[in-house]
Amino acid sequence: MSASPVDPSFDPESPVFRAHEGGKLGVHATQPLRDRSDLALLYTPGVAEVSLAVAEDPALAARYTARGNTVAVVSDGTAVLGLGDIGPLGALPVMEGKAVLFKHFGGVDAVPVVMESGGVDELVEAIARIAPTYGGINLEDISAPRCFEIEEQLSERLDIPVFHDDQHGTAIVVLAGLLNAVEVLGRRLEDLRVVVAGAGAAGVAVTRLLQRAGVRDVVVCDSRGVIHPSRTDLADHKRRLAASTNPRGLEGQLAIALEGADCYVGVSGGTVPEEHVALMAPRGIVFALANPTPEVHPDVARRHAAVVATGRSDFPNQINNVLAFPGIFRGALDAGATRITEAMKLAAARAIADMVAEPSPEEIVPSVFQEGVADAVADAVRRLAPTRPVRES
Amino acid sequence: MSASPVDPSFDPESPVFRAHEGGKLGVHATQPLRDRSDLALLYTPGVAEVSLAVAEDPALAARYTARGNTVAVVSDGTAVLGLGDIGPLGALPVMEGKAVLFKHFGGVDAVPVVMESGGVDELVEAIARIAPTYGGINLEDISAPRCFEIEEQLSERLDIPVFHDDQHGTAIVVLAGLLNAVEVLGRRLEDLRVVVAGAGAAGVAVTRLLQRAGVRDVVVCDSRGVIHPSRTDLADHKRRLAASTNPRGLEGQLAIALEGADCYVGVSGGTVPEEHVALMAPRGIVFALANPTPEVHPDVARRHAAVVATGRSDFPNQINNVLAFPGIFRGALDAGATRITEAMKLAAARAIADMVAEPSPEEIVPSVFQEGVADAVADAVRRLAPTRPVRES
Repeated sequence: MSASPVDPSFDPESPVFRAHEGGKLGVHATQPLRDRSDLALLYTPGVAEVSLAVAEDPALAARYTARGNTVAVVSDGTAVLGLGDIGPLGALPVMEGKAVLFKHFGGVDAVPVVMESGGVDELVEAIARIAPTYGGINLEDISAPRCFEIEEQLSERLDIPVFHDDQHGTAIVVLAGLLNAVEVLGRRLEDLRVVVAGAGAAGVAVTRLLQRAGVRDVVVCDSRGVIHPSRTDLADHKRRLAASTNPRGLEGQLAIALEGADCYVGVSGGTVPEEHVALMAPRGIVFALANPTPEVHPDVARRHAAVVATGRSDFPNQINNVLAFPGIFRGALDAGATRITEAMKLAAARAIADMVAEPSPEEIVPSVFQEGVADAVADAVRRLAPTRPVRES
Repeated sequence: MSASPVDPSFDPESPVFRAHEGGKLGVHATQPLRDRSDLALLYTPGVAEVSLAVAEDPALAARYTARGNTVAVVSDGTAVLGLGDIGPLGALPVMEGKAVLFKHFGGVDAVPVVMESGGVDELVEAIARIAPTYGGINLEDISAPRCFEIEEQLSERLDIPVFHDDQHGTAIVVLAGLLNAVEVLGRRLEDLRVVVAGAGAAGVAVTRLLQRAGVRDVVVCDSRGVIHPSRTDLADHKRRLAASTNPRGLEGQLAIALEGADCYVGVSGGTVPEEHVALMAPRGIVFALANPTPEVHPDVARRHAAVVATGRSDFPNQINNVLAFPGIFRGALDAGATRITEAMKLAAARAIADMVAEPSPEEIVPSVFQEGVADAVADAVRRLAPTRPVRES
């Protein structure tokens, strides 16, 4: 990730600090508490009946507690936005913001859980221990490669959806955009040569989901160039990438990979000089997703590519995770899903792509505020959701 | 605690289950999210400025995140109401109810955190790890004696208030009632012989707080009788009680302790036969707090005692923790308190007692719905709150 682009000066009178005064989230009761009889229903002695019923049949928790609509937005603050490792307190405003988006777009009650960082086992242990509180867990801004192991271990241990948004949210919206880009260009995913620049959380997940969607030729680059099996400097997750990508056995810098490539997906935070973009095949696709500074400025990219997307709202085709995660959890919670499968991710991407009535080079993804996106994603996800066996009564 | 008095039959049409449909808590945004410019303030890129400022100066988290008004209601479900060890999911409806009370009476945003049970170290570790999320931690329905160690270790490790309500909430309201009872009777705490029946969370805390308030002669009984140093069956917390109570060196059953006692505080769930109550000194005080079945029925107690209190709302003098915890956390959060001290607990008890304009045998504590109680408690607590040193800028 790039160094901080933000001036850390603290101005309490600025609009952003005023908007954060007192925090961005509140908790409220959904039932009136007017008198002793309300108290006896919502708390003792009445609540004891509900507690016993839920203890008897845990599936009732989804119906009689807020758990069925509640997601924890969990971070240890080790990879916050482009800011890096700023710790749990620094991460808290971001997690509150995320919770605001969950509610606004998906009707999901999300609560931040920021934690002291530690080893994989320690974080997994703590998250698993508090998991009974929640209907799902959204992992956020946890540094790679720890994030892969943490998500994997939690998914195995828990019977609720665990979803690392920096990985899968990004991958789903990239795929949605790519589906419309190939449609616009009259091409097929199977025939594309794709370069993914960045082998962190987003790069790994984008690569896997594109492969799952049918892309055969993906070359992944990190800051040292193409990831290939003869490199001796690869961490585990990169070694796995080396084994499953780069079918033409390329070696060398990013420019080697870009030569003749049809699609570039930048999730690296680096920069790509124009002469390297010019090496791509004609009628190409550029997703330059680093924020706030895209790896290639979209005006430059457009000179060489037919479809250009960024992570920014002030250019066409903003690849924004908010198109995905609210609907994904909405659908998963409604279905009582035990996990988010690859099929659900593919269906979510398709649903997002289908929200664009007439895809064009300037519109391959819906706007963040377009009505109905989260509902469409939720519908798609819900249909495919695996659920725990229903208890016989 | 007594065995479950509740019929575990599950009737979705009953008022209590209808009141719990969908859970009792929701999360909401405190700021409008109308368009891209709101999004840029509440989330990226604006939030990055706030995150950096908070990472620089953690004290800003109280102002610019919801943390400053947020309390975790934490339980592992091992000692829920009178129901016993029913697990985290069973505990969740109770914790949601508690959160409703926090909001209604104290304006505190409380969120349940229910966790898989485990050893003291495991629970402490998990709670400490997620503690940066919260401005305070209310422990609830955790079995004794683990609850003592868990609270102690967390209080030492964290710089936010940690408060086990089953201990201290109960103790504070008992002391509040006792302060008015001795006033009504024209007596002094220093001269009372007090018997505490029950050596669990509530019994231990009641004993300590009464001693702190000036009571010299407390005799504690468990199910095997008076706790005294020659007993060989005592767990650590009871051995400490043995060393600091029972100044007249009594041995034997509860009846021995009741002989000539001025005050009985039952937090045991057992029953006391009338002939034993009759052994108390004239003009006595009986707090029979087991719920829903008091250790002595109040009609029986009144034949032998001048002031009688229970835990129930359908008799005079309900000793209810809700008189204490919302105001305690309200005051602690407002002050940025790092812990809840003994002085704060004593002041809270005094504030609750003072809310009764004219104490009488039938009114030694305010009603749960009496206006102003939480504010008075908060004021008292805030004045005495220890805070972390303010960072120089």
